[in-house]
Amino acid sequence: MSLDRIFNAESVAIVGASRVETKRGFQAIRTLLDEKYEGKIYPVNPKEKSVLGFRCYPKVSDIEDPVDLALITTPAKTIPAVLEDCGLKGVAGAVIIAGGFRELGAEGTKLEEDLIKTALRHNVRIIGPNTSGMMNLKTHLNLVGLHGTPKGDIALISQSGNMALTIITEATLKSRKGFSYYVGVGNESDIRFHEYLEFFKNDPDTNAVLMYVEGMREGRHFLQEAYKTTLQKPIVLLKSGRSSTGQRTAGSHTGALAGMSEVARTAYKRAGITVVEKSDMLFPVAEALSNLPPVKNNRVAILADGGGHATIAADILSDLEVEIPELRAVTQKKLKEILPFTAAVRNPVDVAGGTDSDPSLFAECARIILKDANVGGLLMVGLFGGYGIRFAESLTLKEEDAAHQMGKMVRKHDKPIVVHSLYSSAKPHSLDLLRYYQIPVYDSLDTACNCIGALAERGQYLKEYHAKVNFVFNWRAKEKPEGRRIIEKAMEEGRRVLLEPEAKALLRLHGAPMGKEAVATTADEAIEAFEKLGGAVAMKIVSPDILHKSEAGGVRLHLSKAGEVRKAFNEIKTKALKYHPGADIRGVMVSPMSTDGLEVIIGTKIDDQFGPIIMFGLGGVMVEVLKDVSFRVLPISLLSARKMMEEIRANSLLDGFRGLPPYDKATLSRLLVLCSDVVEAYPEIDRKPKEYRWIPLRLRSGW
Amino acid sequence: MSLDRIFNAESVAIVGASRVETKRGFQAIRTLLDEKYEGKIYPVNPKEKSVLGFRCYPKVSDIEDPVDLALITTPAKTIPAVLEDCGLKGVAGAVIIAGGFRELGAEGTKLEEDLIKTALRHNVRIIGPNTSGMMNLKTHLNLVGLHGTPKGDIALISQSGNMALTIITEATLKSRKGFSYYVGVGNESDIRFHEYLEFFKNDPDTNAVLMYVEGMREGRHFLQEAYKTTLQKPIVLLKSGRSSTGQRTAGSHTGALAGMSEVARTAYKRAGITVVEKSDMLFPVAEALSNLPPVKNNRVAILADGGGHATIAADILSDLEVEIPELRAVTQKKLKEILPFTAAVRNPVDVAGGTDSDPSLFAECARIILKDANVGGLLMVGLFGGYGIRFAESLTLKEEDAAHQMGKMVRKHDKPIVVHSLYSSAKPHSLDLLRYYQIPVYDSLDTACNCIGALAERGQYLKEYHAKVNFVFNWRAKEKPEGRRIIEKAMEEGRRVLLEPEAKALLRLHGAPMGKEAVATTADEAIEAFEKLGGAVAMKIVSPDILHKSEAGGVRLHLSKAGEVRKAFNEIKTKALKYHPGADIRGVMVSPMSTDGLEVIIGTKIDDQFGPIIMFGLGGVMVEVLKDVSFRVLPISLLSARKMMEEIRANSLLDGFRGLPPYDKATLSRLLVLCSDVVEAYPEIDRKPKEYRWIPLRLRSGW
Repeated sequence: MSLDRIFNAESVAIVGASRVETKRGFQAIRTLLDEKYEGKIYPVNPKEKSVLGFRCYPKVSDIEDPVDLALITTPAKTIPAVLEDCGLKGVAGAVIIAGGFRELGAEGTKLEEDLIKTALRHNVRIIGPNTSGMMNLKTHLNLVGLHGTPKGDIALISQSGNMALTIITEATLKSRKGFSYYVGVGNESDIRFHEYLEFFKNDPDTNAVLMYVEGMREGRHFLQEAYKTTLQKPIVLLKSGRSSTGQRTAGSHTGALAGMSEVARTAYKRAGITVVEKSDMLFPVAEALSNLPPVKNNRVAILADGGGHATIAADILSDLEVEIPELRAVTQKKLKEILPFTAAVRNPVDVAGGTDSDPSLFAECARIILKDANVGGLLMVGLFGGYGIRFAESLTLKEEDAAHQMGKMVRKHDKPIVVHSLYSSAKPHSLDLLRYYQIPVYDSLDTACNCIGALAERGQYLKEYHAKVNFVFNWRAKEKPEGRRIIEKAMEEGRRVLLEPEAKALLRLHGAPMGKEAVATTADEAIEAFEKLGGAVAMKIVSPDILHKSEAGGVRLHLSKAGEVRKAFNEIKTKALKYHPGADIRGVMVSPMSTDGLEVIIGTKIDDQFGPIIMFGLGGVMVEVLKDVSFRVLPISLLSARKMMEEIRANSLLDGFRGLPPYDKATLSRLLVLCSDVVEAYPEIDRKPKEYRWIPLRLRSGW
Repeated sequence: MSLDRIFNAESVAIVGASRVETKRGFQAIRTLLDEKYEGKIYPVNPKEKSVLGFRCYPKVSDIEDPVDLALITTPAKTIPAVLEDCGLKGVAGAVIIAGGFRELGAEGTKLEEDLIKTALRHNVRIIGPNTSGMMNLKTHLNLVGLHGTPKGDIALISQSGNMALTIITEATLKSRKGFSYYVGVGNESDIRFHEYLEFFKNDPDTNAVLMYVEGMREGRHFLQEAYKTTLQKPIVLLKSGRSSTGQRTAGSHTGALAGMSEVARTAYKRAGITVVEKSDMLFPVAEALSNLPPVKNNRVAILADGGGHATIAADILSDLEVEIPELRAVTQKKLKEILPFTAAVRNPVDVAGGTDSDPSLFAECARIILKDANVGGLLMVGLFGGYGIRFAESLTLKEEDAAHQMGKMVRKHDKPIVVHSLYSSAKPHSLDLLRYYQIPVYDSLDTACNCIGALAERGQYLKEYHAKVNFVFNWRAKEKPEGRRIIEKAMEEGRRVLLEPEAKALLRLHGAPMGKEAVATTADEAIEAFEKLGGAVAMKIVSPDILHKSEAGGVRLHLSKAGEVRKAFNEIKTKALKYHPGADIRGVMVSPMSTDGLEVIIGTKIDDQFGPIIMFGLGGVMVEVLKDVSFRVLPISLLSARKMMEEIRANSLLDGFRGLPPYDKATLSRLLVLCSDVVEAYPEIDRKPKEYRWIPLRLRSGW
């Protein structure tokens, strides 16, 4: 497998090797030496004879022995030629540091395309360009120039060198953790996120994957790979760039509804990824998930030595929708036996000074709490680690005793313990001991809460996981001949949007329950339709030139008399022609009026990153003003459709609000799945990637 | 002024003084000695002759010289007698450490009430009980037993000893800041939050007030005091306890809408308080606000040495609604002259390696950026402070030079600079220099962003401040005789709720524009009313026994024929009697049907903390399902009423959605103000503190 030869390269050529200490081509070799890289190093530079004691080669192809990997430190324009040469030599991969490609616009894009063509021709895989490099901590293959990165079980994938540095610094200063690999993805022009992920999924020394992502080129493949990975190993991911000018201005008024970050967030979560919103949380959450078993029942106990921390922790966990169950009576009784009478023992547990003279009591409390079947994990907050510092040096040993005891409890009960300590930065030995036992300790209360929250979320995911998801676009819905004719007619007329009657016909064809309606071209026809329908009607303009019908005055509701229908027909036509002079008016659609019920909107779109997606929401205002919508990457199962309904804030309306009968969620679920079929069956629907195609429906109670 | 004699006490009696080292009564005196308290110390304990070399008195009243303050370390039950004695001695105040009062239930509450009575009788003011103590860092009056708290300009008010410890520890480890005073509020049984605040407002050495609050007993007075304080000094506040079981279960289904934390948040913000949601942010935000001028135009520039941090910072600032404006052309030009061609200069500014060989260039960039009139403040993110550590030791001096230059810029331009540095925890001298110049430096990117965000929020507040607010309940609306009769009739019948026709009459009386309607007691009367109104009608049950009319089947809409009206009348009565057998049915209200328009809800309530409050929202579903509402403490101005409308998520509906004409916000504002008048004019409206009184309205476009 080609990435294996790259990440475990036994020989590296440094193209652009230099004797000048400030140059990347010097530092790269210096770092490999300092870090004691186990493989062979070949400096390459036609102008040098030797660098740091190594013979320097004019070209990569001049090297006699095999070369697995090339680190290219020369400027953008030189790179196609270097790659040609690497190809001749049979190099498996190249790490390209230089910027100046796609990120600089059209000219750079051209250069990048040339580079990729060359790489493909010679079967050289590319990391970057515009990357800070890569590291294999196991073989000390350090192509980044950053010294002292700790070795461990987290694979780090980052699209920013600074964020990688941030995470590595944090790991060094605040944990006993380290990394198996680091890769700077850069422009992701050849090797994609999902390929890196697949490699780390299969790496036996990697227990978690930590990702910082700015943009992803093949989101759908990534989701598929992530979906497989997260069953074995957690992925922790931060996606930034949701506020960039580009995204603020992109898309039409409907396209803007997509809320890119919300689409991405939902998609990632569905693939089992732990999505992090704050960069501060990235490393801590990865530490917790790679060290600890998940919380299996979403229920956490809080153990505190003061009210303030306990109250704040309870607030944060509630926000994260983690339950803080009342402890069982027997648990409370046992805690009361060892704690002062003023202690709180229901949960949160507050020791109320009970540990002041003997902090090893924390271990006893933890043991009692973890035995409670109601409790899936323990969050300890407060001063632990600081009793020896604050009160009396002798307490230090009691704290260390407690750490040894607690360290063994996690494995015994298969429940996680996460610790917040105000004294973390004072680095007492007891906290280092906890970390030795893989119990993470955080100086931020907020971080500690979020970490146990992530463990609870992962527990829920693994519990609810079901194996039928396939993110690749292949659920093989079939078109129907009549549907094909509808689409082709529109295309023949040069239209990119179906008229409402056409869209309804298409959906009806695929099994959607649609109301009766008729298109009238004269006022008399409208009255005829009205009388046939028998009851109040709605009338809407049918014109390929008028998409926003209300704005054009093209919608009239609650018409219950023939005279009203005639008047409405004429007014709609007049207003439409005023709104869009010369508009091609096909008629006015007359439909039965729904006097009550709930409006539902289903939309589909081709997302830049994730391909076809679907959106669900209630009513025009709910969607367009409140943006109360949920998303899924297609295809969706009936279960996903159900969850989409549950995810909107106005969900309870569907369940029947204030004594109204509930709506028919089963039919609505089928309709969502049907929509995804239609999107696949007619690939022409893909042609307008920036806008949603809406399917507005009105449900009656009990429908 | 009595708090002055307490906080600046020149003599302290330690009641419960002890020779046992682990006792609070020993530690208190030890701490005062260690910290070199400038006043006199009088141990009090009938069983001891001397403690730590001081003569020990049997009682406080045995002390010959005047005593300003008593620290009482004895158990709860002893305290009333001690207070009696303090009173005889003329002590100004007592700090009561013991718990065991109100927080323990009925018996404790009784004890606390006794304590307060004694204190009142003798004019002794109480800090606590159930407090960790207080400190005056200026006179070294340290009654907490926590050593080494740094002296400075922040007054700390906390309802949790652990949170105080957290904040003091953070200040010590991560800043050059310190505290003027600390007070543990405890049960707030005598001296209230607003009294402490008033003292710190007037203290010349205090520049900011930092507060951790769990519950507040006189929120309205506090708001009034805060409102005056924040014009001079920032207040940073975290309110916890929003998730407590009590709050989750309290209140009826409408009362629960109040969203206590949302009411509090809005009220605090309106008083100019900087409300913090995460405990991690408390100290950093206080540091930034006490050190720096605010951002005056809500516009911030980001200066970064890498894309990742800049992108994440832009995301966070966007979430905080801080603008990141494009820099002026001349600014961009000047930056281009000193930075590499690959640098980004629009904003965020990315130096793209331009500072690698000379980090003093950061100061030059900062100078150019701060000169830009478009920019109100600067956020610098990335590696500054670490160039000397990471690249070459010589760069350390360049960084120090930059720090000196930047330090002077803040005062010169009167614009704040906030710095994020990955290397903060390595404690390089350059970062300490920045802090010397009062530029705060944070190791968390999220924290740095939130701090500049808080400076922007404070700038906006001071700009929009207007002097007319008065939170004390005295806007002196007058009752009307007819209104009095409506209220009294309901009370005579033992009712606690007005019937809809009565409520409408009351509002109409005070100037609210109300629709026509009639109450029918027979089907014939209903038809008569229908015919008089001329057009479709709505019909609603009128019964003191039926408050939730829809649930009881007591609401019928869109009735446009006499036959329908008759049928509806009978059905409403039948269903109502089925829903509530034996219900007192006063009739059925017949009102004109609004076929279009927007439903608006105004509610008022007496809040436990803040007294009378008002709520605004759109429509039943928007409020009850989506909880899309805004709050204000009464009274409100017309401007506040406007802001309440702007604060709901569905605000754009009022402005006219999709080409509809806008609604009449001026009238709606007057209506909100009118509602607050009604609440004051009839104090009987106060009697049901847990429920909202709703005023549902339906607006027509252009109303």
